[in-house]
Amino acid sequence: MMKNILLTIEYDGTNFHGWQRQPDEITVQGHLERVLGRLLCRQILLNGTSRTDGGVHAYGQRASFTADINIPVEKLALVANNSLAACEKGSFALTPIRILKAEEKPLDFHARFDAKGKKYIYKIRNLQDVDIFKRNYVYQVTEPLNVEAMREAAKELVGIHDFKSFEASGSSQRESTVRTIFSLEVMEEDGFVELHISGDGFLYNMVRIITGTLVDIGLGRITAVSMKEIIETKDRSRAGHTAPPYGLYLAEVYY
Amino acid sequence: MMKNILLTIEYDGTNFHGWQRQPDEITVQGHLERVLGRLLCRQILLNGTSRTDGGVHAYGQRASFTADINIPVEKLALVANNSLAACEKGSFALTPIRILKAEEKPLDFHARFDAKGKKYIYKIRNLQDVDIFKRNYVYQVTEPLNVEAMREAAKELVGIHDFKSFEASGSSQRESTVRTIFSLEVMEEDGFVELHISGDGFLYNMVRIITGTLVDIGLGRITAVSMKEIIETKDRSRAGHTAPPYGLYLAEVYY
Repeated sequence: MMKNILLTIEYDGTNFHGWQRQPDEITVQGHLERVLGRLLCRQILLNGTSRTDGGVHAYGQRASFTADINIPVEKLALVANNSLAACEKGSFALTPIRILKAEEKPLDFHARFDAKGKKYIYKIRNLQDVDIFKRNYVYQVTEPLNVEAMREAAKELVGIHDFKSFEASGSSQRESTVRTIFSLEVMEEDGFVELHISGDGFLYNMVRIITGTLVDIGLGRITAVSMKEIIETKDRSRAGHTAPPYGLYLAEVYY
Repeated sequence: MMKNILLTIEYDGTNFHGWQRQPDEITVQGHLERVLGRLLCRQILLNGTSRTDGGVHAYGQRASFTADINIPVEKLALVANNSLAACEKGSFALTPIRILKAEEKPLDFHARFDAKGKKYIYKIRNLQDVDIFKRNYVYQVTEPLNVEAMREAAKELVGIHDFKSFEASGSSQRESTVRTIFSLEVMEEDGFVELHISGDGFLYNMVRIITGTLVDIGLGRITAVSMKEIIETKDRSRAGHTAPPYGLYLAEVYY
């Protein structure tokens, strides 16, 4: 019987060319579709919630697919994880992708179109030295950040705004660049700064440009009070730099 | 003027086929020799202290080389690290190898032959779930370890012993398999177990086989009291499994 399955997926994006299937590159979607396709003996096409870029990680990417499968849905994650592990040279502990959950949804459910919002976490290491073992997992800012200034500026971003200033230049035309940020918290502990940002949707590179702008504010390159103006000008060149992909984690999708 | 330079080197071994230069593989030694050679405009041959395997990391590998160089020795680390960074696609923060120190030594000094001992750290994550983001940096043991039993057995290993039981089978003949372990501590904190082991020298895979044996003891597959017997039999098959490379860090070299 035809089923619509929603997967919750965790991955280390370091060695993938992002989520989206590409003919000649190793991507998370492509790898998962191949492994699931072999496992279920049919072509599997995943609808992912978020097209994460290369190097971006996920604690909770979501993807749905419809297929006439006879593996019980509650066993699917376990079985698929074993197939994923079998594709790695080493042991199970070396798998960069893991399915955390598989659940059945109504046939008309779609992982992306039905998403009500998403949460991203951006991780910054703010210590004087560089930790080479963390280079693929945090953005290492070695000059001290003024976290209070970052928090002050972050408040301006919460709510309904036109975020055109925070969209990568050259992005394809879209109906609207208005988005709602539900919350944006700046946490600090032992030299690690984390941004927790949730909203109804994000423009291309929006979280990374917001992060870069907040880092520039934390470093005193941009003043905290100018955040309001940066939003209002709708001009990408007024915002700060684009923070690198490897500090970014797709944390959660809301339905 | 001819100088003998001793380097202290940190590296993430994940994407290297170990330390030792190989014709068709990317190795730490090979990469460093190429980068230093280009920088100094001459062939550089490094004498490394320890031939770490693929996936093994280092906080403090040592390597010496003699060359007639005119860069001041105290500037060498900085300059070489910039060259290493230039070889990476991304920024400085993405460099998997870093030179921590460069110092001048007498011309007859040799990084390996003059070493009086070494310290290794082996990192184990002992929590029920697997953290995919740590898969290249810790050995993930998901069954609970009896750390007390591991400590008890570890005591037997300290001192002067013939460690033949802890040498990879098929190792090349060597004069003696007697080594001295100065200390072996088993630390535990928040589900992470670390072995700190220092000694005058280590046989091939010795630290990984000691770790695997202690893990087998921690899991109750081998009894702690049998450690003495395992040493005495000088039989590799009596010891436990070989722990994977990615949990191992060459921490320090003593001169």
